[in-house]
Parts: sequence; structure tokens; C-alpha cells
Amino acid sequence: MGQIPSVAQTSELMIIGWLIELLNAAYCIWDDIEDGSSTRRGQPCWYTRPDVGMMAINDACYLESAVYHILKKHFREHPAYIDLVELFLEVGLRTKLGQAYDLLASSRHFKLHQFGLDKYEFMATHKTAYYTTYLPLASSLFYLQLATPKNLEEVRKIAMLMGLYFQAQDDFLDVFGNPAITGKVGTDIQKNKYTWLVAEALRRCSEGQRQVLDMSYGRDDEEHASKVKEIFKQLDMVEEYENWEKKMVVSIKSAIDGIDESAGLKKEVFTTLLSKILSDPRKQLPQC
Amino acid sequence: MGQIPSVAQTSELMIIGWLIELLNAAYCIWDDIEDGSSTRRGQPCWYTRPDVGMMAINDACYLESAVYHILKKHFREHPAYIDLVELFLEVGLRTKLGQAYDLLASSRHFKLHQFGLDKYEFMATHKTAYYTTYLPLASSLFYLQLATPKNLEEVRKIAMLMGLYFQAQDDFLDVFGNPAITGKVGTDIQKNKYTWLVAEALRRCSEGQRQVLDMSYGRDDEEHASKVKEIFKQLDMVEEYENWEKKMVVSIKSAIDGIDESAGLKKEVFTTLLSKILSDPRKQLPQC
Repeated sequence: MGQIPSVAQTSELMIIGWLIELLNAAYCIWDDIEDGSSTRRGQPCWYTRPDVGMMAINDACYLESAVYHILKKHFREHPAYIDLVELFLEVGLRTKLGQAYDLLASSRHFKLHQFGLDKYEFMATHKTAYYTTYLPLASSLFYLQLATPKNLEEVRKIAMLMGLYFQAQDDFLDVFGNPAITGKVGTDIQKNKYTWLVAEALRRCSEGQRQVLDMSYGRDDEEHASKVKEIFKQLDMVEEYENWEKKMVVSIKSAIDGIDESAGLKKEVFTTLLSKILSDPRKQLPQC
Repeated sequence: MGQIPSVAQTSELMIIGWLIELLNAAYCIWDDIEDGSSTRRGQPCWYTRPDVGMMAINDACYLESAVYHILKKHFREHPAYIDLVELFLEVGLRTKLGQAYDLLASSRHFKLHQFGLDKYEFMATHKTAYYTTYLPLASSLFYLQLATPKNLEEVRKIAMLMGLYFQAQDDFLDVFGNPAITGKVGTDIQKNKYTWLVAEALRRCSEGQRQVLDMSYGRDDEEHASKVKEIFKQLDMVEEYENWEKKMVVSIKSAIDGIDESAGLKKEVFTTLLSKILSDPRKQLPQC
């Protein structure tokens, strides 16, 4: 964004990048315990190691706290220091709020039709988009002193669209992706996850189909999962998703096109980000 | 401290007090999961509720994040706003560092004699003293704009002494307190907790006694716990503790006496705090 950063600026921007990685590591550690996962990126989850266990909770707490310690160490004299601190804190709050929705939905204490598509969007953007997309962009703006309210708002708007797109794609691939390519066997249906597929299916289904979803979604066996997949097929969810996806890409591209570059934003940054999301390698091979 | 606060100031100081309570709640929720506890203050731990489970981790994360949201809401325009934010963040980091020591010691992957009394002091002050004693005092100083480096240093010094005293007392009562009074049956020995008693015992014991402690401390049965208690008796740990305690009270009183009140500190605040710790109701009845 703006002019090409100097070597010193690049180095400091990389520190900010690493801080986002630390935050991400903390969220992954907590998330795996909360979800009862056993592997992450092909490795055993941190908490599953016999010498770690529930100590992992505190390890993640420590990582998150370390972010602010390092922020202070390197940026205490930066004019946007307090803005950076507040940005990280705000993103943390929003991520945990999104995570709370995700966990409440999958805790089976609510029926999913009590949630709506608006809540899906809230959850998807909060639990993922803020820290994966908004934070890197907004923190760079603050660091480069380009964080005008208008720039921040444009970044937020596009980050939310991208985050929603990314999460819905993740949800879609969990059910319709090829495990040989995605590297994991989907369990969202069994775990009662509130995904784009089920949110949209509940919006479009008949009363009879809703009863099947109510009964079979979130049950931890293959038979019930098959019934859910059958409903998804009846509702043409693959086609529905592909149509939705196309519309989303149009919206995102149009939002990027509309960016006002006069205050330092560069469309190119967003186009590069979008192409990374669009070229998700998990989508390359035919879906099963 | 300083002049008597106005009604508006008192109200804002109470908000800060509640923020410390929120932080405390988060630490308790995490700590109970990490320790595998079943009750806290006579109630089932939050995570043990069937409708909560590991969602409790995120609930605590959310409470901690909420602290900074509320801090911003009420104190964004306060001249010491950034100092307050940094204070809460620093205390958070230190608490988690202390907790890491506590968990590592009790994880049984280390022999306790590898730790020393200096590490005990570090752990005890970090895991408890910073957030229970230093934070309330220092945040009030910042709020009242009396946080000169000298005032902060005096507060930190006394808070650490009080915190160490408090933690050692807690450790002592876990083994020698009367369960009818303390409200809990001690499990520190079985849980391999690194306490004042075992740290001091390891410093004073013979080679033979050390072997017994090595073998029996941290074993989850009554027989081994009795052997540890027997060593504690051989080493006169009750008397040792009482002597240490007396010396600590003298040190704390002398530190309070030495307070320079010219920059707004009031000895009375510390004396009141100390009398609260000294009158711990758990100590009132004869120990078993």
C-alpha cells in the first residue's frame, strides 16, 4: 500500500506478520481442544502430546500475551502504537465471539434452524475473517500511517467478503471435497457444525427435509451423515454453492474495483489476496 | 491514595475493580481445567457443566478480551489510558508465565529438586501476586495519576512480599490446615505441586530424605502422601513455616513503614491489605 516500504519498514512489517502468526497459533491450540480434534496440518494437536495435555491452554494464553509484549518492545514509539494494540485486542474479541457462536451451534444444545443465515455470516466473518484477513491489512495500514477511517472501512468490507467466501468454501469442501486432496475426512455434519451448506439447506428445504436434517445432522455416525448428504443432493447444494460462489467473486471483484486509491490503498494487494483464495489447491481436482 | 476520590472517581475505580474480577474469573476457569479440578468455592467448576465442557476455554478467552473492550469504552479519554491497557497486559503475561512454572512443576516431567527456592518465589509472585495485589494497587495509581516510577516500584515491592506470603500460607494450609475450616482436602502433595513446603524441605533435607521425597511426592495415593508428611514433620516444617511467616510479616511491615507518602501513597491502604491477609479465617482454629 502507498509507496514501496523501506528495508527497515519491511523488517518491522514482518514483525507484525509474525505477531499475527503467534495469535493464529494460539487460536489453533485452543480450537483443537475445544473441538476435540486429534490432528492439525497432518501433525498431532499440541494438547494431545502426553507431556503437554491441558497445559496447552496456558501455552496458548502465553502466546497471545506475548504478542502485546513484542508489540510494545518494537512499536512503543510508533505514532500508531495504541491503534495497533487496540486493533489486535479488537480482533481478539471478535474472533472469540465468532468462536463462541461456532461452539454454541455445535454443542447440540440448540437446533440449527434457530440460527439463521445472518448468524452464519456473523460467525464466519468473526471467527476467521477478522484475524486472517482484516488484521494483516489493517495493521499494515496503521503501521504505514494510512489508516484513515475510509481506508479502514474499505479494508474491512473486502476482508469480510473474502472471509465469508473462504469459510463457505471450507464448509463446502468438508462435505464435497476429495479427501485425497483436502487431506482430511470431513466431520462437520457429525459434529453439528453450523456451515454454509446446512444454513442454506435449512433456508431452502421443505418441512419434511427439515425434519430429516433435525434428526440426522450432528449425529456421530455414517448412516445419519448419509441422510444429510442425500438432502443436500436433493436440494442441489453443489450447484447452489457454485452459483453463490460466482456471485461472491463478482461482489469481491467489484468491491476491489471500487477502491479509492487516492489515500494509499492499492487494488493490487487485494487482487493478489483474492487470487490466492481462488487458487485454493484443494479445489483443483474433481470433487467426489 | 492521595486525596479522597470524588463520587465519579469512585465509580470509575469500581469499574476497574470489576475488570480485575473479570480477569480473575478467566484465570479461575482456565486454571480449573488445567488442574483437572472439580469444584471451586464449593460449586462445580464451570467446565464440568455438561452444557459447557471445553467451550469454557473460549468463555474465559472472551472474558479476558472483554476487559480491554470495557477499558476502552470507559477510559479511552483518560490521560493514563495506554498505561492502564499496558498494565493489564503485562500482568496477564506475568500471570501466565507463573502459571506455566506451576504447571510444568506439577506435570511430573521434572524432578522438583531441579527447581530452587528462587524459582518458587518467581512462580508464587507471578502466578498470583501480580493480578491479586499489584494490579489493584497499580491500576488505582494510574487512574489517580499518581503512578510515578517510585510509587509503582514501592507498590510492586510490597505486593510481591504480600503475594509471596499469601501463596506460602496457602501452600502451608493445604497440608497442615484443618479441612473443616479451609473447606477443602489438600491435594498439593499428590498433584506434585511446587509449594513453599516442598521447596523449603528440599533445601533442608538429608540425602535419604530427598530420596523419599523424590519417590513419594506427586504420587496419587494416601500412603505416599503420608511418607511426605512424615518427612515434613522430621524437618519441623510447621515450626519452620511459622518462623518464616513471622520474618515475612516483619519485612512487610517494615516495607510499609518505609513508604514515602509525599507523592500520594498512603500507608493505611497497605496496612488494611496486610491485616486482611493476616486475619485469614482459615488460620483461626487449631490446625490438625
